[in-house]
Amino acid sequence: MGSGTGFEVGAAPATPALVVSLPTLERNIAQMAEAGRAGGFALRPHAKTHKCAQVAERQLAAGAVGLSVATIGEAEAFAKAGATDLFIAYPLWLDESRQRRLAKLAGAARVLVGLDSVENARRIVGTGAGVVIEVDSGYRRTGVPAREAGALARGAADLGLEVVGVFTFPGHGMAKQESSTPARVREHAARDQDAALAASAESLRAAGIEPELISGGSTPTAGFWQQGPVNELRPGVYVFNDASQIALGSCTIAEVALWSVGTVVSVPAADRFVLDTGSKVLGADANTWAGGYGLLPEFPGAQVVQLSEHHAVVQLPEGRSSPRHGERVALIPNHVCNAVNLADELVVVDGGRHVDTWRVAARGANG
Amino acid sequence: MGSGTGFEVGAAPATPALVVSLPTLERNIAQMAEAGRAGGFALRPHAKTHKCAQVAERQLAAGAVGLSVATIGEAEAFAKAGATDLFIAYPLWLDESRQRRLAKLAGAARVLVGLDSVENARRIVGTGAGVVIEVDSGYRRTGVPAREAGALARGAADLGLEVVGVFTFPGHGMAKQESSTPARVREHAARDQDAALAASAESLRAAGIEPELISGGSTPTAGFWQQGPVNELRPGVYVFNDASQIALGSCTIAEVALWSVGTVVSVPAADRFVLDTGSKVLGADANTWAGGYGLLPEFPGAQVVQLSEHHAVVQLPEGRSSPRHGERVALIPNHVCNAVNLADELVVVDGGRHVDTWRVAARGANG
Repeated sequence: MGSGTGFEVGAAPATPALVVSLPTLERNIAQMAEAGRAGGFALRPHAKTHKCAQVAERQLAAGAVGLSVATIGEAEAFAKAGATDLFIAYPLWLDESRQRRLAKLAGAARVLVGLDSVENARRIVGTGAGVVIEVDSGYRRTGVPAREAGALARGAADLGLEVVGVFTFPGHGMAKQESSTPARVREHAARDQDAALAASAESLRAAGIEPELISGGSTPTAGFWQQGPVNELRPGVYVFNDASQIALGSCTIAEVALWSVGTVVSVPAADRFVLDTGSKVLGADANTWAGGYGLLPEFPGAQVVQLSEHHAVVQLPEGRSSPRHGERVALIPNHVCNAVNLADELVVVDGGRHVDTWRVAARGANG
Repeated sequence: MGSGTGFEVGAAPATPALVVSLPTLERNIAQMAEAGRAGGFALRPHAKTHKCAQVAERQLAAGAVGLSVATIGEAEAFAKAGATDLFIAYPLWLDESRQRRLAKLAGAARVLVGLDSVENARRIVGTGAGVVIEVDSGYRRTGVPAREAGALARGAADLGLEVVGVFTFPGHGMAKQESSTPARVREHAARDQDAALAASAESLRAAGIEPELISGGSTPTAGFWQQGPVNELRPGVYVFNDASQIALGSCTIAEVALWSVGTVVSVPAADRFVLDTGSKVLGADANTWAGGYGLLPEFPGAQVVQLSEHHAVVQLPEGRSSPRHGERVALIPNHVCNAVNLADELVVVDGGRHVDTWRVAARGANG
């Protein structure tokens, strides 16, 4: 029941489903671990991508020093699964309930929290969590300018917080630039990251704080790592990869370890068919570089031209005939993190067989 | 703790949350019910928007003849909640497991299923479900051309299926057209719907089948209903409304009954702030007519210029100052159906008080 391209569609008990290739997943984890060992950087993979204990266990077994997460809820889920070193790489603002939850977490594991304001720092005091100063390296999302990192670190330390280091997310490595190529955009963002982290580490030292952790992202920029100030990376998507990463050139189709499996429910025209994998399965994310709403590895040149909640409308290239009603088709999501967060479980396959079902333990853990 | 605009932010126990205004919801339900009574059309609201038993109960109590749903899983959830007349307005392709599930449903309630191919019809035979022929009225998603409806209906009837009527979804009433206005696009789609349903009803009659049900969409086109062939509408979004409906002009801000409540976690610049309501709370849906990733009713002229999984980056208009760290801000999602499907529960408020919590009973019920 497998397909020629290796995107198994037969093993899922029903559609729509998210299917994980166990061998590809394990190869992706091993390759990134090996890159870290060869390059001399530690890995703290971002678990927001997979939200599964079974993937985290494999990352830690391959040598990851800990996990990155985005929310206290995710940290709770992975602490429950046995993780003992958790970095909530997000500028948390703690109300009283979150203060209690963070303190409980920090009593059971090493917990670090992102910080980009003294306002947020005040509410972290007393929880037992350490802080990592967030620096903006060009994405213009959160984080202070590199030159201000030392002042914020000093302010946090003066409040009694343990300041562990600096981090940034070079998310502008995924942004489309008409005048550039994906590879150049990724490399440019990696260099921005290195420069911002070097400058902010220096800024901490000038404020009398030696940064232990100097932490960067990300799957699209990880391949451009070079010896320098950064001592840890936090890639997330690499475990599964997705259609955006393919468009960015940061992975190949053979390295995609997760895809949706849909059923052809309608063939309204000779050059068009409709799958039951809509935005409630894939997420509504656009693909900045490639267009469309996902990639069909078995139908080169086809595009998901329209996505509604339960319909993916596929336009076929000239001369290619449509699959028949009831056939199953693999579709690689644009943004795998959002797709996984829509699923209660992942169907794990190996050699065309359904070998396991993994619960998306931190699904919906947004708070 | 309420805000001046009526978008309560204080009542939610934590953020991010989806908050429902009970009075606004009940007013929206009553208004659409009254429009149906005044106009002479039956209402079969689409429950995919809310996925909540408590909203369905209110729709049925206001006179809805039944519910529309998109999947067997949704039908099962609402049958469990007591619904007895369910239209799965989707061209289901049934594998054996789905055949069994549909037969079980049809044993306990009246169940109708969308149909646009004889291939799918063959697998519905024996389940006890009736079928409704889907016609394409211009959205180019699923459905047969109106003139072919009779032949398909005849084919289905000859297989032994009960053919109950015709339906269409005029989704092109939401598509942006540079040379038109939202109101004209909506009206044009409503007229396309009426024409396609009239022609397909005629096509059924010519094939010897009298259509009992002649069913149209949708929230953006419902306001253009006119006496004619259509005897039932299936709007969904109207119960809550959203930023896309506001941009389309099919509701006002005062008619929005659901919003997300986020906390300001970062203020990286004087004219920019960041909320904890990202794409894992709102969905990543674009707003075709208005741009941005949601509407901030308390910050006119502000725009969510960037949305990642846990960050909504808000750009403020000139002269408007940012809220402070820890302040709560209301944000109206672009596409409420996808936002609700990301939440496990909805926080129900009335007069600034948290009066109830509704479970999103059919969340993730995609199969």
